[in-house]
Amino acid sequence: MSTVTIVGAGYMGSALAWPLTDRGHRVRLVGTPLDHDIIRACLRDGRHPNLQRPLPEGVRPYPIELLEEALDGADLIVQGVSSPGVEWFAATVGPRLVPGRPLLSITKGLGLDDDGLPCLLPDLVERRLPERLRGRVPWAAVGGPCIAGELAGRRQTCVVFTGHDAALLEHLAGMLHTEYYHVWTSTDVVGVEACVALKNGYTLGVALALGILEAAGGPDAAGAAMHNLCAALFAQAGMEMATLVQALGGDPRSVHGLPGIGDLFVTVQGGRSVLLGRLLGSGLPIEPALARLEGVTLESAEVLRLLARALPNMERRGLLQPSGLPLLQHLAEVVTQGKPVSLPLDRFFQVAAA
Amino acid sequence: MSTVTIVGAGYMGSALAWPLTDRGHRVRLVGTPLDHDIIRACLRDGRHPNLQRPLPEGVRPYPIELLEEALDGADLIVQGVSSPGVEWFAATVGPRLVPGRPLLSITKGLGLDDDGLPCLLPDLVERRLPERLRGRVPWAAVGGPCIAGELAGRRQTCVVFTGHDAALLEHLAGMLHTEYYHVWTSTDVVGVEACVALKNGYTLGVALALGILEAAGGPDAAGAAMHNLCAALFAQAGMEMATLVQALGGDPRSVHGLPGIGDLFVTVQGGRSVLLGRLLGSGLPIEPALARLEGVTLESAEVLRLLARALPNMERRGLLQPSGLPLLQHLAEVVTQGKPVSLPLDRFFQVAAA
Repeated sequence: MSTVTIVGAGYMGSALAWPLTDRGHRVRLVGTPLDHDIIRACLRDGRHPNLQRPLPEGVRPYPIELLEEALDGADLIVQGVSSPGVEWFAATVGPRLVPGRPLLSITKGLGLDDDGLPCLLPDLVERRLPERLRGRVPWAAVGGPCIAGELAGRRQTCVVFTGHDAALLEHLAGMLHTEYYHVWTSTDVVGVEACVALKNGYTLGVALALGILEAAGGPDAAGAAMHNLCAALFAQAGMEMATLVQALGGDPRSVHGLPGIGDLFVTVQGGRSVLLGRLLGSGLPIEPALARLEGVTLESAEVLRLLARALPNMERRGLLQPSGLPLLQHLAEVVTQGKPVSLPLDRFFQVAAA
Repeated sequence: MSTVTIVGAGYMGSALAWPLTDRGHRVRLVGTPLDHDIIRACLRDGRHPNLQRPLPEGVRPYPIELLEEALDGADLIVQGVSSPGVEWFAATVGPRLVPGRPLLSITKGLGLDDDGLPCLLPDLVERRLPERLRGRVPWAAVGGPCIAGELAGRRQTCVVFTGHDAALLEHLAGMLHTEYYHVWTSTDVVGVEACVALKNGYTLGVALALGILEAAGGPDAAGAAMHNLCAALFAQAGMEMATLVQALGGDPRSVHGLPGIGDLFVTVQGGRSVLLGRLLGSGLPIEPALARLEGVTLESAEVLRLLARALPNMERRGLLQPSGLPLLQHLAEVVTQGKPVSLPLDRFFQVAAA
C-alpha cells in the first residue's frame, strides 16, 4: 500500500483516485489554485462536484495551501493538471519532487523546444526542474482512450503507461491495474505522448463534418447524415498521426493501437474538441467560435496553434513533406489564420494510394 | 458517356446510380429475383423504395426477366448483390459477361478456397466463370466507408477502387468520380477486399460494448457509458485486421486508411452488424439473437462463421499465431458455438505492447 499524491483535481487527475483506492492506496488529492471550488466541495460534501460521485474512502482532499504536507512522504506523484498548468506544475511542484520518487503524468499536449520543434511535456517539465533533480525524477505518462467519468464509474478502460524505464512502467502498472483499469506499457514515449496530444487536434478535424452537416440543414428527407465524411476524416487523421509520429521519431504502431486510433475514437464521441470542430464546420470563424466557448480549456486549438508554428520548422529540417498532412495544414490555417473550412479531400490518402 | 448495368437493386448497388448518372452515364438497374418489389416500385413510382428517393433521370429499372436485354451492349457491369447472392451472380450473370468488358463489384464478404483458406469474392466469381471467360473479364471492387443512403444523398464520400489492373482502376475512377464521390485506387486487392469483409465481423465486436452497457442498466447516475470499452475494442479490431491482412498477403496500410479503420468507423455507427453485436453483448446467445433478426442478411455473422472455419487452417499453415487474434477468436466462438460474451481484454494489444 502506497501513498499517492495527485496534483490537479480536475476530471482525469481525480478519476485516478478510483483505481488507486480500489487497490488499497492512500490518495491525497490536491487542488491547483484553479481547483479551489472543487476541493471545497470535496471537503464539504465528500463528493467530487465534476465527476458527480462520492469520493472513494481513502481519498483526502487538500487545498493548494497544504501542498507541502500533501507531498510529504508520497510514494508517487501524479501530475494531474491540464496543459496550460504544466508551467505552474514545474515551477511549484517541481522543486518539491524527490530524487527517485516517480511522477506519473496525465497531461495532454506538446511543447516547443528551442529549435521550434515539438517536444513532449514530460521533457519540458524535466528541463524546468532544479539542476539537482534533472534526470533524477523517474517519470511515466498515460495514454489511451479514457473518459474520466467512465473510469470513476469503474467502467472497463484500457490504457498505456509510457516512459523510458520499462521496470518503472511495470511497477506503476502493477500498482494501478484493477479489474476495470487495464494497463499496458510501452517505451515508445514519442509515439504515445504525441498521440495523446494530436488526437485532440484531429478530433476537431473529424467533428468539422458535424458542423458541415448542420450548415447543410441536418440530415435530408431520406435521413442521410454525413457519416461517410466523418469516417474519411477519421481515416485521414489516423494516417496523418502516423506520419507525424514517425517524423518525430516515434513508432507508428502506437498510432494504430490504443494511444492513437483508440483514443481518437473515444475523443470524437463528444466533448470540447468536438464542440469547437462543430462550430467551425458550421461556418463560424475561429474567433467567434472561441468566444462562444470562453473559459474552457481547448486542448485541440492549443495543439493546432503549436503545430502551426512547428510544422514549417519540421519541413525546413526535412522531417516532413509539406504535402503529407493536408488535413492538419488546413486545421492549422482555420485555427490560426481564421480561414473558412474547406476540406481538401482530394489531397487526402496519398500514402494509402501509393 | 457509357452504358452501365447494375445487377442487384439493393441499397449499395442502386446508390451507385447517383454518381453514374451525374456523370452522364446511362444506368440500367436490374433487380435480382429477390428484388422484385424494389423494381416494381421503381417502375411504378420512379422512386427507390429502400433509398427513399426519386431515381435520377437516366436510370432505367429492369426486372430479372429482362436481364439479357439489360446486359446487352453494356460498357460496365456492376455486381451489386450481397454476399449470399454471389453464387447466383456467377451462375446467372457470369456466362453472359463479355471478354474485355469490366466488372465492378460492391459485394462484401470472403469465400473459402479448396484448402479451407479465405479467398476473395472476385476470385470466387472468376473460378465459376465458363472457361472461355476465365481471366478475360477485367474486374475491380469497391472498398471504404460508404453508407449507401448518403451516397444517394450526394453527401461527401471517399472510397477506394481495387483490382490488379491499375489502368482499369484509373479508367473506372475517371468514369465515376464526382464532386461528392471521391475515388482513390489501390492494387492491394487482398488488403482492400479483406477489409471490406472483416469490418463487418469486427463491427459486431465493437458493438458488444453497447449490449454490455444495456445489460449493466445503461449509463449510471453520473452518466458514465462505455465509450472507453468501445474504443478499446475498436483499436483491437484495427490491430487484428492488420494482422489478418498481412497473413493473407495484403498490405496493412490498407487497414490503417480508408478501407480498414475508415470503413470500420462508419460501420459501427449503426446497422445490422451493430444490432447483432448489441444483442449478443446484452447476454442473448447467438441463436435467439439471430431469430430476432430473422430475414436480415447478416454479413457480420457470415464472415465470422467463415473465419471460424478458416482460422485453424491458417494456423496449421503457419500463417497466423493462435494467440494473435483474441477478439476474433472470441467472436467466432460466440457466433458459432453459442458461447456467452466474455471479453478477453487482458489478451488484447500484444502487438502494441511489443
